[in-house]
Amino acid sequence: MIEKYMFNYKLHKEERNLEEFFEFYMPTRIVEGNNCLVEKSRYLKRLGKKALIVTGENSSKLNGSLDDALEALEKESIGYKIFDRIDDNPSIDIIQTAFNENENEDIDFIVALGKGAPLDAAKAIGVLFRNRGITAKEAFNLQNLKSIPIAAVPTTAGSGSETTPYSIISDPKSRTKKDLGQESYPKVAYLDPRYILNTPHKEMIQYTFDAFSHLVEGYLNISSSEFSDTLAEKGFSIFREMLPKLSVGDLTIEDAEKLMMASALGGMVISQTGTNLPHALGYVLTYEKKMPHSYATAAIYKGYLEIYRDNPKLLRMLEILGLEKLEDLIGFIDVNIPYTLELSEKEIHDFTARMLANQGKVKNRLEKISREQISTLYRKALK
Amino acid sequence: MIEKYMFNYKLHKEERNLEEFFEFYMPTRIVEGNNCLVEKSRYLKRLGKKALIVTGENSSKLNGSLDDALEALEKESIGYKIFDRIDDNPSIDIIQTAFNENENEDIDFIVALGKGAPLDAAKAIGVLFRNRGITAKEAFNLQNLKSIPIAAVPTTAGSGSETTPYSIISDPKSRTKKDLGQESYPKVAYLDPRYILNTPHKEMIQYTFDAFSHLVEGYLNISSSEFSDTLAEKGFSIFREMLPKLSVGDLTIEDAEKLMMASALGGMVISQTGTNLPHALGYVLTYEKKMPHSYATAAIYKGYLEIYRDNPKLLRMLEILGLEKLEDLIGFIDVNIPYTLELSEKEIHDFTARMLANQGKVKNRLEKISREQISTLYRKALK
Repeated sequence: MIEKYMFNYKLHKEERNLEEFFEFYMPTRIVEGNNCLVEKSRYLKRLGKKALIVTGENSSKLNGSLDDALEALEKESIGYKIFDRIDDNPSIDIIQTAFNENENEDIDFIVALGKGAPLDAAKAIGVLFRNRGITAKEAFNLQNLKSIPIAAVPTTAGSGSETTPYSIISDPKSRTKKDLGQESYPKVAYLDPRYILNTPHKEMIQYTFDAFSHLVEGYLNISSSEFSDTLAEKGFSIFREMLPKLSVGDLTIEDAEKLMMASALGGMVISQTGTNLPHALGYVLTYEKKMPHSYATAAIYKGYLEIYRDNPKLLRMLEILGLEKLEDLIGFIDVNIPYTLELSEKEIHDFTARMLANQGKVKNRLEKISREQISTLYRKALK
Repeated sequence: MIEKYMFNYKLHKEERNLEEFFEFYMPTRIVEGNNCLVEKSRYLKRLGKKALIVTGENSSKLNGSLDDALEALEKESIGYKIFDRIDDNPSIDIIQTAFNENENEDIDFIVALGKGAPLDAAKAIGVLFRNRGITAKEAFNLQNLKSIPIAAVPTTAGSGSETTPYSIISDPKSRTKKDLGQESYPKVAYLDPRYILNTPHKEMIQYTFDAFSHLVEGYLNISSSEFSDTLAEKGFSIFREMLPKLSVGDLTIEDAEKLMMASALGGMVISQTGTNLPHALGYVLTYEKKMPHSYATAAIYKGYLEIYRDNPKLLRMLEILGLEKLEDLIGFIDVNIPYTLELSEKEIHDFTARMLANQGKVKNRLEKISREQISTLYRKALK
């Protein structure tokens, strides 16, 4: 539920504190298949009598997911309202607006359609419906708030938000994106591979890098366990098959299905472990430099992966991916995620300070990472 | 939630109906580690103010789990009652008795300690607490009943009940053991490897065969998916390492930890797929011939595995287990599960008829298995 950032080479349990425990928890029901939203609409029926559909302005109309949602809801005689103004980096304001415009509508649950942003936004909006009187701003600073039920319908294979409790929102106070801090696992996630098939090649790579990064950051993570590693390694084996196809850009419906699964696996993994430095440092870049999330994460990857160069788990990961050496992976990212980034020394200083200052509850987990190490990761990201 | 029995060689999706869907659902929180029940007692606090401890007469006192449960409950100021009369094959009567003796105690949740039997019984008892006025007998014939929350504390690495919705109870009406038919996933499962360390060698093999059989029957199953297969294959890789150690009987705490994980994985797998013919046919043997559950299941294995002799998934399973050929696996079971079984032709006829007659909701899934095929499996079980 909270992001964990640390430099720690000791990833094997025997090297860790012997008294350490592991947990596994992922209560979302996953339903996969062509037209699953309509065919398995009965799971919506369990969530209530009136839904708020939360989505962005365009894509859910183009990829067919909105039509499917309407058909599924009508099939189950569930009423609905639509809020379709979620952009790629949802703000506290838009969360509040979505709630305010519908607070008198007797909304029982939310159907979230789209990329990670509408799914994450839906979780935050759901918290406001469940906890009447609390503002979106206040929700950021409270604990243990629940959401009304969420049905998550991802239309990219990327964010994994369909299988996580996280809700990443832009926070003007800390001037970065961060997790709302509540635990809002969707009740059900519908994975329909048809929705991603017509994604333009460049965007497909961008989104799937997000799924890939979740697998990596959950695997190279002090909170990883044999359970989370099993799922991450399955994800890597999917990417072994998909990396060449993603470079070319010619995907079948079966490929799309595998990528949807890799995305859900990525979500399941980071639900156990949290993400790691690339996400944390990248959020600031997205907030300040308007870099798309995947590009901002990818920018940190070169420096991040080098930290683990000789780590047995990194070597194992490369082996599963079918890559000979770390440079092959760094090269793949470099070629396929064509970002540019310039930062002044003042920006590097400021972003580093913000990273160190705004970790809130996880501050005590940061003892192993220094100001200089964070600055170095930003410097290595310049391109 | 329901057992699925079928002879079907087409296990790969491409060979199945293209419109088929898969689902994954396992909402239990798994907590693993030495002394986890006491150290992570906070998860009990969420379940209520008064618990009914459901266990057997002896083992939870010997392996330390009962002491740990009392310490955890006292630490969280949770009141409790104890019902410690669950035997290996719980009957409808004992379920009813456990409820009747405690129905006025304001029980909020159940802490189930022991082998599969107390865990399965706890789920049925929990249904009676949640649905006042319904008898245990009636619960067998109703649908969609929920249970009060369950905390499951397995003290064998075998049943996997800690991560399943199933509650297998002896049913005098159909003269076999069968699932209560409600969906009662434990809210939390505490896996403490210390509880199994002092299990006598012969019993350890017996229990772990149950975990192994869940992995196999979930893997060689028409309802298997890439998700469930990922978990099953992880289980097989644990058994590859453990088979030689189990033969010898010298286990470390790390081995115990791995076996507890294999058991939980087995539960996660059959939660998606159901078990298969060995469990179904074995339940009758346990009911009528008083064979321990694992022995009764194992008796069917020779005939069952031979059905899949040339199936690619069976070959893949053998490969992960590090076994060269099917005979190596059948031989291992034969040597390590030393059961004896005699059946008259009349018994074979009766048990076969009972199998065919008592499948209730799954009857329509049985079209591919004939009377003669079931009888053959019983005949091959004789020893």
